[in-house]
Amino acid sequence: MEKREATTVEIAETSRERKGKAPLLGAVDNAKAAGYKRGVAIFDLILRISAATATLAATITMGTTEQTLPFFTQFFQFQASYDDLPTFTFFVIAMSIVTGYLVLSVPFSVVSIARPLVAGPRLLLIVCDTLTVTLATSAAASSAAIVYLAHNGNSDANWLAICQQFNDFCQRISGAVVAAFVAVALLIFMVVLSALGLRKH
Amino acid sequence: MEKREATTVEIAETSRERKGKAPLLGAVDNAKAAGYKRGVAIFDLILRISAATATLAATITMGTTEQTLPFFTQFFQFQASYDDLPTFTFFVIAMSIVTGYLVLSVPFSVVSIARPLVAGPRLLLIVCDTLTVTLATSAAASSAAIVYLAHNGNSDANWLAICQQFNDFCQRISGAVVAAFVAVALLIFMVVLSALGLRKH
Repeated sequence: MEKREATTVEIAETSRERKGKAPLLGAVDNAKAAGYKRGVAIFDLILRISAATATLAATITMGTTEQTLPFFTQFFQFQASYDDLPTFTFFVIAMSIVTGYLVLSVPFSVVSIARPLVAGPRLLLIVCDTLTVTLATSAAASSAAIVYLAHNGNSDANWLAICQQFNDFCQRISGAVVAAFVAVALLIFMVVLSALGLRKH
Repeated sequence: MEKREATTVEIAETSRERKGKAPLLGAVDNAKAAGYKRGVAIFDLILRISAATATLAATITMGTTEQTLPFFTQFFQFQASYDDLPTFTFFVIAMSIVTGYLVLSVPFSVVSIARPLVAGPRLLLIVCDTLTVTLATSAAASSAAIVYLAHNGNSDANWLAICQQFNDFCQRISGAVVAAFVAVALLIFMVVLSALGLRKH
């Protein structure tokens, strides 16, 4: 519900006037709506912090991954690092942006808890959250495609699996992708919850 | 706003009673809210049909892509098809689901136009749209990662670009990915619009 507190009070007063209810009932209704919205906002804050933790973990895991093999030829030292693959660079950048947004959005979520009947911050959050879901999903999905390729290779395109050699590297990037998908799930839940919070008064 | 028409009329009556406005004003307010919501719903329907067209185009383009090279060795005939790469199979399946959902959701969008003040269908749509955005984004992003690899290869992982040989194949899959991203942009816009439609009464 998007009407401001004043309006809600007005409605409450009206039904009291018209139906001759006890004066307390309007205030009770209003407090109930505020309580529901506050509950949603608190849950939103918890999800937001969890998602921020997951994206931070994904960023750090991916960003610090490198592995040097213990043998080398005359020309090459075999080394794998996340920035060998542009997709993983995109992953790190996108996940950093998502983490930054989630941290910066915490104050707006707190405002929603403090003033549950004001719709402005909640609406801003739902729009930005939708964009963030898309960014996080694209980073997670594109990296997942590359991780799959690194594990399994593709005989038709003649791309060999590199995970036999770079086992440690592959495990870490897989972990980062899993953390990213956990964050995506939390973000989807957050958007749906915000939509429900907008609806019910 | 999610209150039913009846409630809105009640509010309108109240303000008339309290402020002594002309009797017509309440009905005008109500009609204005309905008009705004109907406009949003019509725009939503247009976006929905456009997105369905884009995802259908992406599905068909990807699903019918194959190229056989005009030379062969004793053991191989060089042929590329979308199902050589699991990511593209996922793309076709996910995009089919998204197209199906978008077509099936058109009636709900029509109900939103016919009854602009009822929040139920709109709320159902915003939740399902959010999930659909994620599915479409993951399909588009993972395929984009593979298309990039097909075009550019990766020297560190020793994956060669296959687009020199399979030029026609690469152009078609690139087109499908672009269509998928257009659909994603339309879907994001739809979710944001639905959120705004829920808010304003």
